[in-house]
Amino acid sequence: MASNKTFFCIFFFFLGLFLLTSSKAMAHSMKAPRFKTSPPCKRLVLYFHDIIFNGHNSHNATSAIVGAPAWGNRTILATQNHFGNVVVFDDPITLDNNLHSAPVGRAQGFYLYDKKDIFTSWLGFSFVLNSTNHRGSINFAGADPLMNKTRDISVIGGTGDFFMTRGIATLMTDAFEGEVYFRLKVDIKLYECWKQY
Amino acid sequence: MASNKTFFCIFFFFLGLFLLTSSKAMAHSMKAPRFKTSPPCKRLVLYFHDIIFNGHNSHNATSAIVGAPAWGNRTILATQNHFGNVVVFDDPITLDNNLHSAPVGRAQGFYLYDKKDIFTSWLGFSFVLNSTNHRGSINFAGADPLMNKTRDISVIGGTGDFFMTRGIATLMTDAFEGEVYFRLKVDIKLYECWKQY
Amino acid sequence: MASNKTFFCIFFFFLGLFLLTSSKAMAHSMKAPRFKTSPPCKRLVLYFHDIIFNGHNSHNATSAIVGAPAWGNRTILATQNHFGNVVVFDDPITLDNNLHSAPVGRAQGFYLYDKKDIFTSWLGFSFVLNSTNHRGSINFAGADPLMNKTRDISVIGGTGDFFMTRGIATLMTDAFEGEVYFRLKVDIKLYECWKQY
Repeated sequence: MASNKTFFCIFFFFLGLFLLTSSKAMAHSMKAPRFKTSPPCKRLVLYFHDIIFNGHNSHNATSAIVGAPAWGNRTILATQNHFGNVVVFDDPITLDNNLHSAPVGRAQGFYLYDKKDIFTSWLGFSFVLNSTNHRGSINFAGADPLMNKTRDISVIGGTGDFFMTRGIATLMTDAFEGEVYFRLKVDIKLYECWKQY
Repeated sequence: MASNKTFFCIFFFFLGLFLLTSSKAMAHSMKAPRFKTSPPCKRLVLYFHDIIFNGHNSHNATSAIVGAPAWGNRTILATQNHFGNVVVFDDPITLDNNLHSAPVGRAQGFYLYDKKDIFTSWLGFSFVLNSTNHRGSINFAGADPLMNKTRDISVIGGTGDFFMTRGIATLMTDAFEGEVYFRLKVDIKLYECWKQY
Repeated sequence: MASNKTFFCIFFFFLGLFLLTSSKAMAHSMKAPRFKTSPPCKRLVLYFHDIIFNGHNSHNATSAIVGAPAWGNRTILATQNHFGNVVVFDDPITLDNNLHSAPVGRAQGFYLYDKKDIFTSWLGFSFVLNSTNHRGSINFAGADPLMNKTRDISVIGGTGDFFMTRGIATLMTDAFEGEVYFRLKVDIKLYECWKQY
């Protein structure tokens, strides 16, 4: 009889634990956790190279001024730290810091300068990758206070190998030659990764 | 005595399993899963129609060139595959491919042409839906290599019926008449769906 | 012997339950829940102030017209409800509705007017916060039908204190003085919050 009591004792102990566990699981499926944290599920370091059209370099320019404030024009970047200039670009992406390396894709989109007293910009663009390792696009948006050594923008989505991804990208100015050429190192850390269904 | 030993044996077996299960559950609530996959939680197929202002069609134009490179202007799309043209639009959305069907909303935002040697564009816009079936907005961003038969852009968020949504949209050029009219078929697949709290 | 049978009985009962629970957990780690809902994990109410350059106010203007349709220019907002005007801004953010309060950050990015028959706009911008309470950026995108009392846009990502965040922001026009000054109240509700790993 003692052994029967012990059975029931153990039985209800485990039953209680189970109900606790499953109610937790159910709550979880209905409510998102408060604060998520995880290491990156994917990481890429890439470079891209921007050569802005200045009236004399149409053979190799990869970007052009397409918007300017009333006090500017579309051939020379405006005074006041280029405030108001909008630039459209189609820049080669490389695995290293060499402009002449074989490109693995194109960085396409726009940036605009948005502060009068120092250089800052705002970016909306995609990495369109088409190499043996990666096929698909990564979409970016965010503020780039470009005088800082590193600054973060958002990865807001992706397609193909980067289907539904989210993360951040740390930008570093790797080179800067006058107002014609700059090279950015982009450290992409993806924290949400999906497989296409 | 043997039965007591067995009790303890079973007890610790289950205890171990429970701890394993609950530690997994706890880990899960703190760490996002590595690779998610699921079928769409919502799907919509819609069309939108773009009639670009060319100097002579202000009565029915739905979009206008607002940015151009130094070698272009704002009435005629620029040479070099319209590189650098920025277009703002307010296009009707329809359920079928007929421009004259009753619109269920407006596609509003901008696109820009960003490649010299072929047509490619970059899009930032919203579907603002206001019909009996759908009320709310879906926000899009991404690269559109428009010479491809299908291409994917990101759904980066939404409001109203599309609160907090994410997904991808597959674009297809459904018609193209000179440089004045185009119609896009948009197959929207949403993989994250929320109910407003 | 009866007690042995009972052992096995209990054993398989719990084994079954465990497998059920763990298979559920596994399914969960592979499939996202269908419809998520939760209260905001973070909420901020802030104001920002836009003073557009009109040719005479370069000393205190915080924004400038940088794109216009063929029928407009970059000093005066265009006819037809400013359709096609693109504006770049670097606006002070304050905790209250006073333009002269100490700013807690800057709202940086662009807006464009995108409808001929009423005022509507499309926004792509960041709150770059740099105060004792908040350090980091919040990125926004979406349609703003600005004649509505309240309207929602998407929070598409963030950095620093707002790492990987998502949510919506409810915009309210708090003041509007001719075509030079407006003040927006922004009620930011974040539903996905992360801690940087």
